[in-house]
Amino acid sequence: MAITLGPNQYGKAESRVVRVFRDTARHEIRDLNVSTALRGDFEDAHVTGDQSAVLPTDTQKNTAFAFAKQKPLTSIEEYALTLGKHLVHQTPQATGARITVEEYHWERIPVGGTGHDHSFVRGGQGIRNTIVTVEGRGADQRTHVISGIGDLVVAKTTGSEFRGFLKDEYTTLQEADDRILATSLVARWRYAHQDVDWDAAHASIKAILLEQFATIHSLALQQTLYGMGKAVLEQHPEVAEIKFSAPNKHHFLVDLSPFGTDNPGEVFFAADRPYGLIEASVVRDDAPPPGDAWTAVPGFC
Amino acid sequence: MAITLGPNQYGKAESRVVRVFRDTARHEIRDLNVSTALRGDFEDAHVTGDQSAVLPTDTQKNTAFAFAKQKPLTSIEEYALTLGKHLVHQTPQATGARITVEEYHWERIPVGGTGHDHSFVRGGQGIRNTIVTVEGRGADQRTHVISGIGDLVVAKTTGSEFRGFLKDEYTTLQEADDRILATSLVARWRYAHQDVDWDAAHASIKAILLEQFATIHSLALQQTLYGMGKAVLEQHPEVAEIKFSAPNKHHFLVDLSPFGTDNPGEVFFAADRPYGLIEASVVRDDAPPPGDAWTAVPGFC
Amino acid sequence: MAITLGPNQYGKAESRVVRVFRDTARHEIRDLNVSTALRGDFEDAHVTGDQSAVLPTDTQKNTAFAFAKQKPLTSIEEYALTLGKHLVHQTPQATGARITVEEYHWERIPVGGTGHDHSFVRGGQGIRNTIVTVEGRGADQRTHVISGIGDLVVAKTTGSEFRGFLKDEYTTLQEADDRILATSLVARWRYAHQDVDWDAAHASIKAILLEQFATIHSLALQQTLYGMGKAVLEQHPEVAEIKFSAPNKHHFLVDLSPFGTDNPGEVFFAADRPYGLIEASVVRDDAPPPGDAWTAVPGFC
Amino acid sequence: MAITLGPNQYGKAESRVVRVFRDTARHEIRDLNVSTALRGDFEDAHVTGDQSAVLPTDTQKNTAFAFAKQKPLTSIEEYALTLGKHLVHQTPQATGARITVEEYHWERIPVGGTGHDHSFVRGGQGIRNTIVTVEGRGADQRTHVISGIGDLVVAKTTGSEFRGFLKDEYTTLQEADDRILATSLVARWRYAHQDVDWDAAHASIKAILLEQFATIHSLALQQTLYGMGKAVLEQHPEVAEIKFSAPNKHHFLVDLSPFGTDNPGEVFFAADRPYGLIEASVVRDDAPPPGDAWTAVPGFC
Repeated sequence: MAITLGPNQYGKAESRVVRVFRDTARHEIRDLNVSTALRGDFEDAHVTGDQSAVLPTDTQKNTAFAFAKQKPLTSIEEYALTLGKHLVHQTPQATGARITVEEYHWERIPVGGTGHDHSFVRGGQGIRNTIVTVEGRGADQRTHVISGIGDLVVAKTTGSEFRGFLKDEYTTLQEADDRILATSLVARWRYAHQDVDWDAAHASIKAILLEQFATIHSLALQQTLYGMGKAVLEQHPEVAEIKFSAPNKHHFLVDLSPFGTDNPGEVFFAADRPYGLIEASVVRDDAPPPGDAWTAVPGFC
Repeated sequence: MAITLGPNQYGKAESRVVRVFRDTARHEIRDLNVSTALRGDFEDAHVTGDQSAVLPTDTQKNTAFAFAKQKPLTSIEEYALTLGKHLVHQTPQATGARITVEEYHWERIPVGGTGHDHSFVRGGQGIRNTIVTVEGRGADQRTHVISGIGDLVVAKTTGSEFRGFLKDEYTTLQEADDRILATSLVARWRYAHQDVDWDAAHASIKAILLEQFATIHSLALQQTLYGMGKAVLEQHPEVAEIKFSAPNKHHFLVDLSPFGTDNPGEVFFAADRPYGLIEASVVRDDAPPPGDAWTAVPGFC
Repeated sequence: MAITLGPNQYGKAESRVVRVFRDTARHEIRDLNVSTALRGDFEDAHVTGDQSAVLPTDTQKNTAFAFAKQKPLTSIEEYALTLGKHLVHQTPQATGARITVEEYHWERIPVGGTGHDHSFVRGGQGIRNTIVTVEGRGADQRTHVISGIGDLVVAKTTGSEFRGFLKDEYTTLQEADDRILATSLVARWRYAHQDVDWDAAHASIKAILLEQFATIHSLALQQTLYGMGKAVLEQHPEVAEIKFSAPNKHHFLVDLSPFGTDNPGEVFFAADRPYGLIEASVVRDDAPPPGDAWTAVPGFC
Repeated sequence: MAITLGPNQYGKAESRVVRVFRDTARHEIRDLNVSTALRGDFEDAHVTGDQSAVLPTDTQKNTAFAFAKQKPLTSIEEYALTLGKHLVHQTPQATGARITVEEYHWERIPVGGTGHDHSFVRGGQGIRNTIVTVEGRGADQRTHVISGIGDLVVAKTTGSEFRGFLKDEYTTLQEADDRILATSLVARWRYAHQDVDWDAAHASIKAILLEQFATIHSLALQQTLYGMGKAVLEQHPEVAEIKFSAPNKHHFLVDLSPFGTDNPGEVFFAADRPYGLIEASVVRDDAPPPGDAWTAVPGFC
């Protein structure tokens, strides 16, 4: 019997990289939260404490900041691919990397009917992100791109029911013909290849997700999510699969009858906890293998 | 020498009241976080434990939910005024009330070029709120309305300097000709009277705040805030005073020279803590007295 | 009619100052979160943008770090008094300062039956803090010390009732003979003078608060808080007044009867929101005047 | 090419179950945060919306509360095993379950030199948790128990260096002979079997982790974690493997030289972001296979 090192990775998490493009008076801003991690043969670093194979997390951070200027930052996916391949290249004992980037959305402040040149306000719906995984070195190297959106809070005030479910002796839930359906959606989709217009694809997929949420008559959050994912795969052949993690944010109808008032779906109590948690994925059966793309992505089975 | 009860208040905090208007197929939604509190002569409740003068916080919560249907909910200010006056009326030993309401903004999901009838996505910039204070009972009763916006995150990528400041032996800060100015603004303004179109006033004041932030050439966050407040008071005679609490969210220029790259205002590190914290108010010298309007409003001197 | 600058203050918030005392092999650690602010005649800084009277927030931060070594750091109260008086002295147009310090508690890691010399684990109950206010300059200068504890989460599983309260048409709450009473206590007390052993006083007051919470048979959270405060004032003549902000963290008895099980006070659902919020203060009638000591202290009326 | 349902699970997250044992006047309290999830053949629920195979998340929640009284709650591991096996049994199309439980630690309030019978204060170091996975049905059913601790914040003020690391053109980090090492540890260990005294094992493993952190002379956080894990496996044959996720919470030495003061390891700035993030695992080579035990456990590769 022996005790040995198992899976491991290390890196710098949550570098807050802000890039301003000021080539003209009309500035652009990219506001990023960048995390990098390396995987590989780092046994000495753990067992004997010899760090000679370890590119410090501080160096990873420096590179993340430097690349914001030295390399094109046309999209977070492109930036993460460049950064991940570079970090593996610089670290001979690395066999892979994981780069995670969130991007915060800024809108131009309206002044006199148009957006201001260099003043911005945070806004928008949901937070765009990407998870890029680099596997292997040199000619055998593969890369995976997962893009996603988090904190996309949506609700529908009708067009949602939940009926015909399995019952046992602990079941007290009443069937619902017409309820509020609300969630704070996390969606992540893996691209089948990288010949993609990253910004356009993201915008289109987000629009499809919202539109499907709006228009599907919901029999359960599971069925809504499945329909949303199916529509994305049908309209985006470059997407190999999509995964969802969706809290069912319960809105309970308030009983106003003690106060002489009926309540036909008008006043609700929005509860914090507990919440339903629905996780589902929709896949294309000819999708290329995911390799390590989903390994250790929080909350996704 | 005697030990006695000092200032006190009690209530129910953070009732999450969601009101759906479904009179037509085109639903409306109001999503509120309501806190109520009563002040008054509640000495017995504290000293002897006799609760006979105490309207329970549970009752306050019930009333907040019931009024979402029983009373008009045309604006959070109107709703809070109605609720506050009612709670004082119901509680003979109350001499005042404080009602605080936050409202979360929902946008219609775009489907086929138009907003959907009953499906929504959370969005927008900042969180609208109001603090209504009721003072006294009966004929002598006065009410105060403070409205505000929180979490309004703004930044400008140029047009901001900070120079000519006082220096002592602990000063190492360099003068800045051109820096990023960013803050997560909290603004609250007190109305001089209540003959106000609450929704229109709020929208206009928010627009002025954003526009002034954008267009004032900043010599310091203090001077920017003062200019923002002055513009609001000039354009809105119904506003008696306005107060700001604004963290100066530091963006530090990253030194890329070790990597052979200059950095003329292009790559920044956005720091979390510490942050500057600027609090300022702008007042009209003929403003009616505030009474208890600002008492115990968090973070405002 | 004129528009003018109203109350204002500015400073550096949340400097995370960690001080290690390593004079012997048995290290000591003080882990602080320090916020400083100056008040005074800073009209030019706001109105014209002239910063020549403004000691930068960056300088305030530097001083907070430097004083952690240059001055004795025997208690957060002593440190805050020194820092506040210094900052006013350095800034001729300042008429006051507010210094707020939180301290995080570290315990020695037990090794071989004793605490380790230089290895620590965060622990303990509640977070100690102080708010020091400096008013005026020179001979007329006064200082106020408020000390406190936050996040002190306490519960009692019996010995708490709530009955005999005022009822109206919105009251549905049942009277409770025996309920769980739980709160996350924030307590702050103002000292009448500064000839105080700060660490010993804090420890004693915290112990009194806990012991009173435990032993008072509760008729309401208000009555419990009053009893806690009264005991502190009776046993600590140096305390002029004490204030509490206490959420009533509701624990609802779960109805297990649908599952054929009674529930005599054994299984509860701990709710997040809404919560009761009880604020109360207990004062000594010969207390020295508070001046600005409580101004803008969040959540305290 | 076909589009199909991929991996999925559903359940109720974060039920706040509080259990009071009041068989004698000396009450006991167990304060839990319980999440349950089912996996299986739920294609109809997603694709056609037919919920007839779906045991509602509301029922799962009811069961979690009811079992707090109906079943022994001797440890969170035992409770989670009972709950997980039951939920799979009740749901014919389920092929597995995941039960996650956190337990908050309460200490008796000291009164007159002893702990009070029914009054408690939250305290302690870190938060105990368990993740139980049920795989399969009937005779083939297997169960896995992972126990852990989160938010265990530890620091050492000396006995930590970081030297001899790999350097490239983006490396500016200086070698450190003597630095603060601090982390907020998350540790999870999988048991090889279930003939375990859960409470005793948890207490012993936590003590080993703390003691090893204290006594290992650190050459890197990786080497510290490996040593901590190795010690646990050596002393606990019932543990098959252990995994760590550890942010390297950077404490930067403050340069006090501009103020005429040296700083030999005495004053530090505790930074929030970015932070190093070290993930490592230590395994026994004869460990039984983990099955789905680690699938979708957040942050663990």
